[in-house]
Amino acid sequence: MSENGETIRPDFAKGGGLVTTIAQDAQTGEVLMLAYMNEESYDETLATGRAVYFSRSRQKLWRKGEESGNVQLVKEVFIDCDRDAVLLKVEQIGGSACHEGYPSCFFRKVTSDGHFEIVGKRVFDPKEVYGKK
Amino acid sequence: MSENGETIRPDFAKGGGLVTTIAQDAQTGEVLMLAYMNEESYDETLATGRAVYFSRSRQKLWRKGEESGNVQLVKEVFIDCDRDAVLLKVEQIGGSACHEGYPSCFFRKVTSDGHFEIVGKRVFDPKEVYGKK
Repeated sequence: MSENGETIRPDFAKGGGLVTTIAQDAQTGEVLMLAYMNEESYDETLATGRAVYFSRSRQKLWRKGEESGNVQLVKEVFIDCDRDAVLLKVEQIGGSACHEGYPSCFFRKVTSDGHFEIVGKRVFDPKEVYGKK
Repeated sequence: MSENGETIRPDFAKGGGLVTTIAQDAQTGEVLMLAYMNEESYDETLATGRAVYFSRSRQKLWRKGEESGNVQLVKEVFIDCDRDAVLLKVEQIGGSACHEGYPSCFFRKVTSDGHFEIVGKRVFDPKEVYGKK
């Protein structure tokens, strides 16, 4: 077990170059989204104070908010016990982390019968933000 | 976009049979841990109201707390926008989700110079809980 004050980095090799990353609202504690970071995006996140992920579908750095303007200002960074997951506590600019326009990507709550209900109120209409291209 | 009231399940196929799962303390909002669920563990979680994961290292169902007694009582279940991540809001029995004895697995906060400081107080000594075998 490593000791307080030692240097630490995520174990990127473990996940084939990626670590799973949770973004949580620093103020409210709401879990906003789950994404991935490679080493480059982790370093850029720490250096710039803005969340930078790695898009698995596009296979490139994903500077969160570069399109929508909804950047995430990183307040605190945590690494989990086995160093394959990162938790970012962030200030979510624009009030929405999700491309669907909700504050959190976890806007669907599963009901006991396997249906879902939408929780959270849409902050923007995705058609208006992403639909222009 | 699916509508309120429809049935919903995680997209297990997308992640090779697994969905990434975040456990969050339902009361405090603290992010406790990150793990994986396969279809069987998801169904058992919903049916029993206790968090059941799939251990990638042991390649079998992992009924959280079966060894330590620190089970997680599931209060709410959420599925994210692209259905490859699940968020469980839980009551963590024993006050510790982490095998290291801390309340959360994210007990190491990265400092600006790349070192870390331990946040959170150990609830148990892992040697006493797991060290007897």
